[in-house]
This record gives sequence, structure tokens and C-alpha cells, in this order.
Amino acid sequence: MMLTVYSDLHEDHAPDTISIRGMIVGNLELPSRALNLAKAARAAGCDMQAPREFGEDAVLAVHTAPYLEFLKTAYGRWKQAFGEDRAGPYACAHASPTRYPARVPASIQAQVGYYLSGGSAPIDAGTWAAARDAAMCALDVADRVSGGLREGYAICRPPGHHAYADLAGGFCYLNNAAIAGRLLADRQGRTAILDIDVHHGNGTQDIFYRDGKVLFASIHADTNEVFPFYVGYADETGEGDGKGTNLNLPLPRRSKDKVFLDALDTALDRIKAFGAPSLVLSLGFDAYENDPQQEMAVSTEGFREAARRIAALGLPTAIIQEGGYCVDDLGKNLTAFLDGFQTGRE
Amino acid sequence: MMLTVYSDLHEDHAPDTISIRGMIVGNLELPSRALNLAKAARAAGCDMQAPREFGEDAVLAVHTAPYLEFLKTAYGRWKQAFGEDRAGPYACAHASPTRYPARVPASIQAQVGYYLSGGSAPIDAGTWAAARDAAMCALDVADRVSGGLREGYAICRPPGHHAYADLAGGFCYLNNAAIAGRLLADRQGRTAILDIDVHHGNGTQDIFYRDGKVLFASIHADTNEVFPFYVGYADETGEGDGKGTNLNLPLPRRSKDKVFLDALDTALDRIKAFGAPSLVLSLGFDAYENDPQQEMAVSTEGFREAARRIAALGLPTAIIQEGGYCVDDLGKNLTAFLDGFQTGRE
Repeated sequence: MMLTVYSDLHEDHAPDTISIRGMIVGNLELPSRALNLAKAARAAGCDMQAPREFGEDAVLAVHTAPYLEFLKTAYGRWKQAFGEDRAGPYACAHASPTRYPARVPASIQAQVGYYLSGGSAPIDAGTWAAARDAAMCALDVADRVSGGLREGYAICRPPGHHAYADLAGGFCYLNNAAIAGRLLADRQGRTAILDIDVHHGNGTQDIFYRDGKVLFASIHADTNEVFPFYVGYADETGEGDGKGTNLNLPLPRRSKDKVFLDALDTALDRIKAFGAPSLVLSLGFDAYENDPQQEMAVSTEGFREAARRIAALGLPTAIIQEGGYCVDDLGKNLTAFLDGFQTGRE
Repeated sequence: MMLTVYSDLHEDHAPDTISIRGMIVGNLELPSRALNLAKAARAAGCDMQAPREFGEDAVLAVHTAPYLEFLKTAYGRWKQAFGEDRAGPYACAHASPTRYPARVPASIQAQVGYYLSGGSAPIDAGTWAAARDAAMCALDVADRVSGGLREGYAICRPPGHHAYADLAGGFCYLNNAAIAGRLLADRQGRTAILDIDVHHGNGTQDIFYRDGKVLFASIHADTNEVFPFYVGYADETGEGDGKGTNLNLPLPRRSKDKVFLDALDTALDRIKAFGAPSLVLSLGFDAYENDPQQEMAVSTEGFREAARRIAALGLPTAIIQEGGYCVDDLGKNLTAFLDGFQTGRE
């Protein structure tokens, strides 16, 4: 069964609340998500592996050095600056930069506002180690895929596709899919990234927007109504060397299987035409009909069928876990996805 | 005594909390601020007037039409979108745009994130009317100053100097000082804006950064440590036609009278050299030694002396109220300021 790379360091990244719409609300991005996914992968007979160490150069191929330094040090600096010593203190954005910030200030409170977009990317004591190991999971799978493995699955937590080169947001700190895609494109000349998380992969888009070596195709709920709001529209097609290698397929809220799968076919046709030798899949289960955010209405069978069609491309594939917040049904949806993927390979 | 323009509409703008550092905290920008300032002005014998109506064209000379439309409609649209009907619902930023947003989406939740910077500019049922009348207070004073009045004082609440052409932030929605400055520069060819609020006037700076007709000079706590963080540094001197007409004088936190007044002398020298026929003063009392934010340590006597030196310029002056959050001492500091100003005119 499928090679699956998983680290338990994510359990120490567990902010219990986020700041959104001017309110403090419970965090949906919980350790139980990855625990349930790992349990289902084990039950499905996956070959579970801890991630190998790849060093930070492969991360720095996507993210800036000052941003990594911020992620590494933010929790300790914040604790020192604000004297917080309770169990759950965490750094969280409190002031947005102006639209065109002139510089990155030195103080921790200013850097937190600069590097964290909004209040849905809090940093606690375990965030850096968890984000780093999630990137290693993605690199491990990408490395094996570049070496001939047909497919592998990285249970990344925290997820990554909202992270820019130097900006965290929407539960994401390091862009695991972009890091995997960068490695594959550098080794193979080009690769394609398909993002079926219900939210637009704004970080991934931005990282490759001017890069013709990486096709980015995203199926997501219309960002006019849904996070991340400000990008993800159909007319964003890439710039410069990347002109024509960005495909956004925004769908109406509460779209069901047929609309989702039709958009998937459009994305798969583009991926075929692009002709890259590998695929990175940003796999979210938050388009699910019972996801608490209720953005789309894809069924468990819809995920099974999506997996079958993606696998039928025949491309060596690095599957990178993104979102999905109906914790109780994550295992069921992953099981269906893995089963559909196997069917598609036959 | 001094002509003072004041509207009581501000009392209906009263969000009781803001979102900052990932927490919900009590709002410092309270109706009692302007009530106390008005009381002190009355006690000092000021000639109290309600603002005359100037229409919105003078506001649109500084702010964009879509931003004004957002401010007018945000509360109602937010209430409709989220079904909130309790006493204190208000729109508040919940997701920052990417650094370079491609567009302004149509939905209220996306627009709230786009037009409100951070969580310290919440919108409640009374915000638009209060902000509009605060701008009218500023326009009324500026209009009279352009017509020959020596000085006038606008008790603006909400304050304005953090508001950009299309971005609210830091308690500010419409940039009262910029609106006054625009009117004066348009009628007189040029004007100068002096900002002695403890926070950098980032909105005012941005509005006039490429405009050589308006000198902007700001004395403030070093923005590396203090809001608004991302601009306000000494090397920001203007661009294009505005090259050389922006002067930032950041001071160390907890600076006392001497440092504050020395910086003021530097700013006054520049204003003299600029040679504009009028002055707009962004007057904050939050550099005060007992201000709850504790950014600087200027005494009541420091404000008296600052007023004396500003008045001694001899320029017709529109005084626009900005911040100051030690509510109990606002009256005392205003009284000292008005007294010092009168001394400086003699």
C-alpha cells in the first residue's frame, strides 16, 4: 500500500483559539486531524514512515531566510517581550502592515504583524518544530517520487498552501506543497501542482506566479465569499515566464460532486497538456459536505472518484495533506481517497 | 477665545472592544475622550460651534469613492451577512489581504479585511456618521482659516491620522487633518501639517507622500516598537513631487519634555523654511506621561510649551484633535495647550 510519511511532532503545535472577524473562536486546525488521518492510513495498510532529514536548504528554495528566522524565534521573543507564561500564550497578528510596507521592523510585535496574515496563523511553543517536520514529510515524498516512486502521501500538519515566501496565514507557515514542487521542478525541469483544497492555494500561486516551470491548478470555493478572498480568481493566469501556467477554477459555494469533478477534469486536461513528468497534489478534505465551514458539498464518494481520475493521469504523484476540518470523517474520506487512487492506477 | 467646532454625533460611535495581539481588549478610544475635551474647551471660554455641512466632495479629495461607500454601508451589510442583532456587533478585520492584493472583492467579509487594517478600527452603527461629522469639523476650521481666521480647533472624534486614502486603522476612518490640509493647499497653493500625536501619522504621510504642495512633519515614538510599525522612519522623505516634503522625527520610547520639544523645534524650523501660508496641527495628547499606552513621557507643562512654540510661528492654524487616552487628564492637558497657544500668539 501507499508509502505514507508522518511525524508526530505536530502534536505539540496546538493553539486552541484563533482570531477571526474581530472575535476569538475555537481553532479548527487541531492535532486530532492528523492523528485521525494517520490512524486511517495505518488501517488501510499504508507503509508508515517517519520523515528523513533534508536540511533547510530545500525550504529556503521557497521561503526567505528572514522569514524562517522569524518562525524559529517568534515564540520565545514574544514570550520575553510580553512576559506571558501561561500554558497557551502565542504570537498572533495584531496590526497589518500598510499595503506597501517600507521595511520589516526589528521588534517582535511589529514582525508578528508583518509575517502573520490575520489572526488564523497563531504561533505556539511547538509551531516551528511541527512546521519544519511537515516540510520534511513533503520533501521525503517528493524526493522518492523524483527517484521513481509512483506515489507517496505526506500527512503534513500544519498545512501549507496559504503560506507565501515570507507570510504565514490560514493555519499555514511553511508551504509544504510548494517545497515539494520546487524540488521536483529543479530535478526534473518542470512539475505540476494540483490543489483541491476548498480554499484557494494563494501561497502556492504566489510562489510560482512568475515561474513557467511549475503549473499551478486550483479548484476552490469562489474567493469573493471565502478565504483567502483577495486572490484565486479565474483571470489570474500567471505573469512573465509564468504566463499561462496558473489556472484558477473558482466554484460556487455548496457545489456538489458533479461541479467539483467537472472542474477537476478541466484541471487534469491542463495538466496533461503541460506535460510535466510528475504531480504534486495539495489534498484538502474541506470541500466535504459536512465540513464545519460548509464551503462546498462534496461527498465521500466524490473524493473517491476524484482520486481515481487523478491517479488515471499516470503521473508519479506526491500527495500533500492540506485542510479538512470534519475531524470525525477525515479517516473515512482518506480511506475512500486511497481506495479510489488505487483503482485509478489499475 | 478660540473658535472650537464640535459635533455630538461621535457619541454613537462606541465600539467597546478592539482586537489586538490576538486578544480582545477594551477600547481606549471612547466617547468620554471628546466629551471631556469639549467640557474643557467650554470651561476655557472657547467659542463652541457645531460643524457646517461641506458635502462629501472635500472628503473625496482625499479618500476614494469605493472606500467611502464601504464605510457608509459596512455596518448594515455586516449585520445582514452575519445575522448579528445584539447591541454591540461590529465589523472588524478578520483576514489581511496578501501584500499585493489583486482586487477588492464584492462581499462584505472580504471588504472588511481589505479596508480595515488590523482589529483596531471596528465599525459599529454610529461609525460612519461620527467619522463624517468629524471630517466636517475639520473642514469647518480649515475653511475659516483659509478665510482669514487666525486659529480654530476641531474636536474630531474618531481621530484621523492613521487613515489612508482607502484604509482605516488605529481608531481612524477618515483622515480629518489630511482633509483639512487638502482644502488649504488647494486654496492657498501649499500648506504644512505638523503631527505631534505620539503615533506616526502614517495615513497622512501616505496621502501626501508624492505631493510637494503639502509638507508633512511628524514627531512620534519610534515605530520599530510602537504602532503603526511599518512606516514612520527618518529616511522616509517623500517621493516624486513630494521629495523632501516629508519629515519624520522618531523619538525613543518614554522620551520626556526636552527631547519632545527639541524635536518640535526641528519640525518648526522646517515648517518655517517651507514657507506655506497656513498650518494644520494634528494634536494628540497621547505622548502624555500618564497615557495608558506609556509610549512617551511628556508632561502637561510640555504640552503648554509646545503650544507656545507652535503659535509663535505666527501661521493661521487649524488644530485637529487626534489621539490621547488618559481620559481623566485630557481636559487638563487641553487647557494647558490652549493657554500656551494664546501666550505664543502674544
